Amino acid sequence: MAPGQTTPTGRTQTDQTEHRYVLTLGCPDRTGIVARISTFLTEVGGWITEAAYHSDEETGWFFTRQAIRVDSVSSTAAELRARFAAEVAAELGPETDWRLTDSRETKSAVLLVSKESHCLVDLLGRAHRGELPAAIRAVIGNHRELEDLSTRFGIPFHHVPFAGERKAEAFAEVGRIVDGYQPDAVVLARFMQILPPQLCDAWAGRAINIHHSFLPSFIGARPYHQAFARGVKLIGATCHYVTADLDAGPIIEQDVIRVDHSDSVADMVRQGRDIETLVLSRGLRWHLEDRVLVHGRKTVVFN
Amino acid sequence: MAPGQTTPTGRTQTDQTEHRYVLTLGCPDRTGIVARISTFLTEVGGWITEAAYHSDEETGWFFTRQAIRVDSVSSTAAELRARFAAEVAAELGPETDWRLTDSRETKSAVLLVSKESHCLVDLLGRAHRGELPAAIRAVIGNHRELEDLSTRFGIPFHHVPFAGERKAEAFAEVGRIVDGYQPDAVVLARFMQILPPQLCDAWAGRAINIHHSFLPSFIGARPYHQAFARGVKLIGATCHYVTADLDAGPIIEQDVIRVDHSDSVADMVRQGRDIETLVLSRGLRWHLEDRVLVHGRKTVVFN
Amino acid sequence: MAPGQTTPTGRTQTDQTEHRYVLTLGCPDRTGIVARISTFLTEVGGWITEAAYHSDEETGWFFTRQAIRVDSVSSTAAELRARFAAEVAAELGPETDWRLTDSRETKSAVLLVSKESHCLVDLLGRAHRGELPAAIRAVIGNHRELEDLSTRFGIPFHHVPFAGERKAEAFAEVGRIVDGYQPDAVVLARFMQILPPQLCDAWAGRAINIHHSFLPSFIGARPYHQAFARGVKLIGATCHYVTADLDAGPIIEQDVIRVDHSDSVADMVRQGRDIETLVLSRGLRWHLEDRVLVHGRKTVVFN
Amino acid sequence: MAPGQTTPTGRTQTDQTEHRYVLTLGCPDRTGIVARISTFLTEVGGWITEAAYHSDEETGWFFTRQAIRVDSVSSTAAELRARFAAEVAAELGPETDWRLTDSRETKSAVLLVSKESHCLVDLLGRAHRGELPAAIRAVIGNHRELEDLSTRFGIPFHHVPFAGERKAEAFAEVGRIVDGYQPDAVVLARFMQILPPQLCDAWAGRAINIHHSFLPSFIGARPYHQAFARGVKLIGATCHYVTADLDAGPIIEQDVIRVDHSDSVADMVRQGRDIETLVLSRGLRWHLEDRVLVHGRKTVVFN
Repeated sequence: MAPGQTTPTGRTQTDQTEHRYVLTLGCPDRTGIVARISTFLTEVGGWITEAAYHSDEETGWFFTRQAIRVDSVSSTAAELRARFAAEVAAELGPETDWRLTDSRETKSAVLLVSKESHCLVDLLGRAHRGELPAAIRAVIGNHRELEDLSTRFGIPFHHVPFAGERKAEAFAEVGRIVDGYQPDAVVLARFMQILPPQLCDAWAGRAINIHHSFLPSFIGARPYHQAFARGVKLIGATCHYVTADLDAGPIIEQDVIRVDHSDSVADMVRQGRDIETLVLSRGLRWHLEDRVLVHGRKTVVFN
Repeated sequence: MAPGQTTPTGRTQTDQTEHRYVLTLGCPDRTGIVARISTFLTEVGGWITEAAYHSDEETGWFFTRQAIRVDSVSSTAAELRARFAAEVAAELGPETDWRLTDSRETKSAVLLVSKESHCLVDLLGRAHRGELPAAIRAVIGNHRELEDLSTRFGIPFHHVPFAGERKAEAFAEVGRIVDGYQPDAVVLARFMQILPPQLCDAWAGRAINIHHSFLPSFIGARPYHQAFARGVKLIGATCHYVTADLDAGPIIEQDVIRVDHSDSVADMVRQGRDIETLVLSRGLRWHLEDRVLVHGRKTVVFN
Repeated sequence: MAPGQTTPTGRTQTDQTEHRYVLTLGCPDRTGIVARISTFLTEVGGWITEAAYHSDEETGWFFTRQAIRVDSVSSTAAELRARFAAEVAAELGPETDWRLTDSRETKSAVLLVSKESHCLVDLLGRAHRGELPAAIRAVIGNHRELEDLSTRFGIPFHHVPFAGERKAEAFAEVGRIVDGYQPDAVVLARFMQILPPQLCDAWAGRAINIHHSFLPSFIGARPYHQAFARGVKLIGATCHYVTADLDAGPIIEQDVIRVDHSDSVADMVRQGRDIETLVLSRGLRWHLEDRVLVHGRKTVVFN
Repeated sequence: MAPGQTTPTGRTQTDQTEHRYVLTLGCPDRTGIVARISTFLTEVGGWITEAAYHSDEETGWFFTRQAIRVDSVSSTAAELRARFAAEVAAELGPETDWRLTDSRETKSAVLLVSKESHCLVDLLGRAHRGELPAAIRAVIGNHRELEDLSTRFGIPFHHVPFAGERKAEAFAEVGRIVDGYQPDAVVLARFMQILPPQLCDAWAGRAINIHHSFLPSFIGARPYHQAFARGVKLIGATCHYVTADLDAGPIIEQDVIRVDHSDSVADMVRQGRDIETLVLSRGLRWHLEDRVLVHGRKTVVFN
């Protein structure tokens, strides 16, 4: 068995042998942007290991993501950021949205759950085998059902009851707990509660939901029941950023599986779990690796 | 090259070496139906080569499809039908819906088209290589663009203009032409016109449409534009029976393909064609092979 | 949220509301088998909820699987077995291979693992949420890496070292431990050791392996390295029964995912895990639900 | 219906509104290549609409493909080539392999066929609707079965019999006919004859084959029979460059579809055709759009 198999890393940026700076940038498109950025990277000695570009004709916007070997550059991340801001970003104009991250700065995630365990176990398992490019800081549940699972994996569990009249208060508490961890991702792992607008705003671009349908089909409650009633031949799941508009946020990833007339709603629920965990884990990975750039209601995913 | 490869047959019922009677039946479920039918088939000496059952818990309905080797039965199809009606169907009650077909009675199809050629060429190609379990009797177009293609393959083309005020008159003409062929399938192969209710009724269970989206997403016009605007990560196609309710008929088959941020609407249109042709050809095959049983708004597909 | 979603059951035979007898049978094909079996089931009052048949033209063999509502039958499983043996199986001849199981008789599985945790966590998670139609009795590892995980889920872990000269002795110990549990399934969940012929024989039809390639491609060691070297555009996984012939046992299930030139071996290893867990979990479920009938080197899977 | 739907173009480089120069390049990797190329493109005013990079860690090789709007550059293709050769390629070293094509210079293809029509009809249909980024100059068949189809679409058909002793002579004739057209692609569209080494050499990087299996499984003759005998649960097809080593050339594209125990060899043959046509048409499109860069036994596909 090769080292690659016992210490699997994939494109995971946390890997010790793959220390990278990751630059992402979006700005109005014009001639010369690629040259400007790549010349800058050459000047600092940067060895580019991954580079992706997208020129969006509809909106006239330019997007890029580049990974640079840290050992090829003598500057620190902070120094690079300062130089890039002064020498490149300034020139590209005030609308430019960019960031430069260090793959060794461990990212963090907080998971919001209810009673369904499949996404939680999947993410705990990935974190346990070192595959998730983030540390799971905490699990917050509106029920106690998943407390035991979380603590078995050594992750703090916060129980915030949502019963009765106290929904606003409960969300305020969830907000305080989450914000205490300053996570890079707030993951609604089958949380089954609709985030209030102020949390959607506060966590814009960081709150990620898994919806158990192939959106825009079957928005809202009980999508598998809706799918069963309509008699579709495929069911799916959608990972998207949370916005104030229910199930309408920018889509990161989707996938489907085949069903047929012999599948009951319960069969769909069971089979759907597998596609939910896959779609959420892929979307979350890409988010954490700075592969997802949001523009309006849509995403650019450099995967 | 083996015979099986130069004379491909698949499950095609028209194959000379696979002469079959195909029995399909739907009725209220109760104990003993399978025994009643299979005992009848045993009594007539029937060698069953394919048998599928579905017991629908939601509606309490029973469905079956069985293929019997013709050379194992001494009766003709007509004799079998008479005996089955008297001995079995009568016992199963008045709601029983059944048919018995002979795989050598060649089925027929009429295609309705507009300007897009991909589904037409695909079906003409399948018919040409003997793969389609039906003869294509005619192509009807509301434009002349596809006349040349149809006639190259020896299929009569009828041009029925839909311009201006004459839509009702045009549909009446389409109806007369279609009915002249008494086809087993009326295929809307990207016809782009909405059938009036009277034709939906007249061709109920025989009119098959291909919609270029993964229904129920993106009902109606320009589904690829809708998909592009929403930023979905998969696009699809849906083959369904036509009903008076637009794009809401019983679904026979669906499939999807992956797209990403770099795909324009034109890219989606081009890539979507491949999935449209596949989905329509599969749905049509299953319909022609009596594999699709409609019940309410849904289908049972024994494929 | 409907009961179906909070208490997901799917086709799981362990569900309280879906108590079933499951009959599986294989025998030489001839006319009247379906009638003989269904008449018997009618005589005992059996309400058939699932029925599948396969007539194998190549080998002239007949296969069936039927699920019967227990509450529709007044006999016990033992009584049914006795009657079926005397009245039906005897008539179908000595080659007939059949069994009748009660979905409430909980099945059991023992997992053999090495250092890779993904399949183990996946199966533990499924068992934890009541989705696996079997109890996991024990985990046996040739290393201690996965002991902690197993015990967190309350499953006994047996460490059997395989180092150096003691492989035969180690396998003898594994054999004794497994046989002590009399499991319905011995799951090689990325065990990475080749079973000796005597264990292949002893566990024939019960030992299930997950191989991390799309067999018959890339048999043997380091399949992802082989896939990378060949430059394939899809990688896969195969769940199969273990036989003395390496990676050549009857295939239960396979699936693939797309890779491209940007994927390193480590990327393939990481992405491949997702397909390995899916394929193993599906194959194991079908085995445990008596949906898999083995005939020679191939399987009939009634799923 | 939008213009984009009636005049579908996708990424097709032949489209009138999307006139592009396409630069592809492979060379030993080092720092600054991206900057060097993009600075050059900026200097000539080039507006980059698509840019893709791959840094191959295994071989230390760098690959890129860039599409530039022709209307953003004042130079002709010839002028650009001369400047790029002198100013960039020279600097990148003698191993650099590059080309710059004009998307309006129509490419050409010659198809080699036998008796199976599905790939031929598919490609003729794509060419007919203006979707194929090449003109089909001729069809060459070792049998006359497909002559009629080719001529119906207005494509010259050359019959070159391969019977008996004359295989070498026949291949010499095929070589002369093909070379007379100087095609950008020689497509073995189910040709079923093994190209002799001298033609493999002469057409290296231009001869494209579709093999009816998921390679490296089932190399050689009758792959569907092999797949049936092995009992695989998926069958596939592989589009690859032809080399002297049978079915071992660099893979451009692969895909699979699901089969089960009820599928005979003839079923697999029939269902396999759909995946063969899809895989060949995708691989050919990418080849014609200069999206495929070959390096050793593998490909980089910028799609």
